[in-house]
Amino acid sequence: MAKGKLFVISGPSGTGKGTICKSILENEADVKLSVSMTTRIPREDEVDKVHYYFVEQGIFEQLIDESGFMEYASVYGNYYGTPKKQVLQWLSQGNDVILEIDVQGALQVKKNYPQCVLIFILPPSFEELKSRIEGRGSETKETMTRRLGEALHEISFIGRYDYRIVNDDLHKAIAEVRGIITTERCKIDEGEALRIIGKYKEE
Amino acid sequence: MAKGKLFVISGPSGTGKGTICKSILENEADVKLSVSMTTRIPREDEVDKVHYYFVEQGIFEQLIDESGFMEYASVYGNYYGTPKKQVLQWLSQGNDVILEIDVQGALQVKKNYPQCVLIFILPPSFEELKSRIEGRGSETKETMTRRLGEALHEISFIGRYDYRIVNDDLHKAIAEVRGIITTERCKIDEGEALRIIGKYKEE
Repeated sequence: MAKGKLFVISGPSGTGKGTICKSILENEADVKLSVSMTTRIPREDEVDKVHYYFVEQGIFEQLIDESGFMEYASVYGNYYGTPKKQVLQWLSQGNDVILEIDVQGALQVKKNYPQCVLIFILPPSFEELKSRIEGRGSETKETMTRRLGEALHEISFIGRYDYRIVNDDLHKAIAEVRGIITTERCKIDEGEALRIIGKYKEE
Repeated sequence: MAKGKLFVISGPSGTGKGTICKSILENEADVKLSVSMTTRIPREDEVDKVHYYFVEQGIFEQLIDESGFMEYASVYGNYYGTPKKQVLQWLSQGNDVILEIDVQGALQVKKNYPQCVLIFILPPSFEELKSRIEGRGSETKETMTRRLGEALHEISFIGRYDYRIVNDDLHKAIAEVRGIITTERCKIDEGEALRIIGKYKEE
């Protein structure tokens, strides 16, 4: 079986990344979503092993020592990272894998796995971004200003991404991500070309 | 308006290129199909300005002299070519344009317009290719052998293409071509990145 492709999806919070990924998983049996690991405390609505692997700091640091992460970072005193083993296993089994991670993580992954595909999800406009961040509620004014600043900082790295999707219509955005996955499977590299030529000559 | 993208679709005869292109045009209002020009005699089922612009040799050669073709060739004593003017006009109006042309023409176009996207449509297998060529009927054994040789010769250039689509299921093949068109529209280049960053900073 051919090896799977690795897709990294980033974008400011409130742009609908999670909803898009969920829909892809439901509709594409061969696509897997990596679950990140973190040392931060779960929020009330978060489920262990679904939203994150919630672990103690010692466990996380042991995995760092074992080079067990595709990328990791410490943000506001908490670790976040993508465990390597499951992702590489899926890829070698021919599954495509999605990582839903931030820009910092995405650029680390691209450095180590240059063949991965980086997709950036954009809100339709700056105003919309602001109102989505505010709409989350239960945030102080300070937190909202910080989140907005982070969003603009993330967007400033968009030139390092392969594709951008403007989520002004969820169905369109989902179709575009699915289109990118399909298209990457149709790409021809040298090995593939030789395999095809061989196939049509030998038969 | 953004400039359109140029797509070139090739593949051996009998692989369903025409059916795929027809479906794309019916479903994507912004996509245009270029009509080629030829000096050969129309077949019974062929309509002028739909299947080809059928012209006299003198007209064709005049357009060659005026550098009016994106690509052209002489095959078995007849000229075939892609008139440039309409295609460039569509692209500048923001329409995507499909050329359904042979490998020789595709490689000429890629040389002159390196940003174009080359798509190769493959039959599911060598046996299927053979039976599709035979299935056209009204062909001598000699013609069929020649067509099969041409098909294998075309496939030998597949490494120069960006994408390959195996037409073992027409709906899947059409979805894949549409996916490629959608995906190309989501690509980020440097100019696009700067435009996005500016948009989210200024607002």
